[in-house]
Amino acid sequence: MGERICGVDLGGTKIEVVVVNAERKLRGQCRAATPTENGPDSIVGAIIAAIEGACKDAGCTMRDLKGIGIGAPGAVDAARGMLSLAPNLSGFAEPYPLAEAIGKACGARVRLGNDVGVAVLGELELGAGRKLDSFVGIWWGTGVGSGIVLHRELWHGRGAAGELGHTVIQRGGLAEPNGLVGTMEAYAGRRNMETRAREAVAAGRPTVLFDLMTEAGKDRLSSRVWADALAAGDALAVELIGEGVAAIAAAAANVVNILDVEAIILGGGLGTRFGQPMADRIGAAMRPYLFQADKAPPVVTAGLGDLGGAIGATLLVGAKR
Amino acid sequence: MGERICGVDLGGTKIEVVVVNAERKLRGQCRAATPTENGPDSIVGAIIAAIEGACKDAGCTMRDLKGIGIGAPGAVDAARGMLSLAPNLSGFAEPYPLAEAIGKACGARVRLGNDVGVAVLGELELGAGRKLDSFVGIWWGTGVGSGIVLHRELWHGRGAAGELGHTVIQRGGLAEPNGLVGTMEAYAGRRNMETRAREAVAAGRPTVLFDLMTEAGKDRLSSRVWADALAAGDALAVELIGEGVAAIAAAAANVVNILDVEAIILGGGLGTRFGQPMADRIGAAMRPYLFQADKAPPVVTAGLGDLGGAIGATLLVGAKR
Repeated sequence: MGERICGVDLGGTKIEVVVVNAERKLRGQCRAATPTENGPDSIVGAIIAAIEGACKDAGCTMRDLKGIGIGAPGAVDAARGMLSLAPNLSGFAEPYPLAEAIGKACGARVRLGNDVGVAVLGELELGAGRKLDSFVGIWWGTGVGSGIVLHRELWHGRGAAGELGHTVIQRGGLAEPNGLVGTMEAYAGRRNMETRAREAVAAGRPTVLFDLMTEAGKDRLSSRVWADALAAGDALAVELIGEGVAAIAAAAANVVNILDVEAIILGGGLGTRFGQPMADRIGAAMRPYLFQADKAPPVVTAGLGDLGGAIGATLLVGAKR
Repeated sequence: MGERICGVDLGGTKIEVVVVNAERKLRGQCRAATPTENGPDSIVGAIIAAIEGACKDAGCTMRDLKGIGIGAPGAVDAARGMLSLAPNLSGFAEPYPLAEAIGKACGARVRLGNDVGVAVLGELELGAGRKLDSFVGIWWGTGVGSGIVLHRELWHGRGAAGELGHTVIQRGGLAEPNGLVGTMEAYAGRRNMETRAREAVAAGRPTVLFDLMTEAGKDRLSSRVWADALAAGDALAVELIGEGVAAIAAAAANVVNILDVEAIILGGGLGTRFGQPMADRIGAAMRPYLFQADKAPPVVTAGLGDLGGAIGATLLVGAKR
């Protein structure tokens, strides 16, 4: 059968699991909803069930796995396999030994990484960054994460690098729930855009956003809902996405002025949904902020698409770092 | 006599030259005013005269020099020894073969680097960055340059990295003469602060800034003039420097959020003049913008002081890069 490696993309709303071979070709997959109650135990249970499902889809069992890589949305202590500071996951505020809990149940070695970090790693090795020496991945979703690749390595700093979403572009501007003011994510994060949309509705502005949400059977404004509202020409959606694009462009231009990287790679739920036309729009909106506008790097969409996070997580298995 | 190496810090107002030994200990120095007319020829002549002066001070001749390193304020093509895009130097808008011109006259090998880059290199090897794996040097002077050190190497990107002064912190805010809007340098660059001071005076605001300038025999607001005005409690100087500090702090916090470096090193004419109390003030002003305020890196002043640019330039001689 050859080598089988499992990758898990643990998100606030869904758990995406893939099983790949040594060349990272897809052999099986499984998707599950992330439990929103009962804390780590229920989330661990759901992850294990999804891993079993992906193995079944791949025609193997968990015992066949060489290892399991997990990308998780929070602060990761990779050496100890601990996850903490994950506000989008129920019960993960305090450090939790996620790698150990999954490893025991599955009988496999588990490596933990940050969700955006592993997705960017996937682009570096297998996606749009394959031939680049340096790039910045901007993951536009619930929040806006980023990964900095320099000389073909993810730059971690003292462990917390890549918080481009929390850089300031508009002092005195909109605030994030965490209290940071005027940051890119305050304008562009999907969660913050939804808060603003709800405030606009409460103030009497018309929009199809929440009708589309109900039609889609969702309780939040998903990437698809935003895309559908834009397609319908909804004025509020156009305005809020426009402000998000402008904010991402300013922050992206800043990181280009600082690091002069070869490219920007756009991923994440919204980035993947909107695709290359949106990447082009961000590229155009960056230009007024670039010190050397004639050397503007290309803005391209992530090459691995929806499964990029899970496939990137498989790279943690067997990795030196 | 041992090895003798020459370093030149070519600035818009002065040329600072040092002669050091192999351990970069100072053996001689010379300072000259930068000619502001008649283009490259007169500047080349002034540099050569200052090199001769520094050699004389060191008890050697130009023939004894192992090599000459030059830090220059513009875009540098190090491989070809070409300087261009140097708006602070008369006649250096177009590419000019500065290394060759100096080398011919002095009979020594000449290496060219960017002025902020060589000053940051000096801090890395000999100054406040000696024991750091990563830091960002912020050089606060006529403009605000920066140098990014990662794993003990200057990061150049595609050749134009480090333009932290031109990152946006306030969309729709003050503009630089180059047209960039809301950048840190629009608020903090000494040249831009002087423009604002002149506008304030034209609008009838009182200040001692220009009296102090005249007393000091200057035709521009030097770092010392700003320091003296602050010491005198001049309200306009306090306000403008305060806005400059706030802008530097926001941009510095952004680069920390992005790269999570171990320290910020503050240098440049104003940074060196104001010293550690100002570094502390910038450190405090950064905190509201940091994603992880409890992991704020220290802000320290450059260890090599006024001669840091020239001493750093000597490191270009014999360097691999």
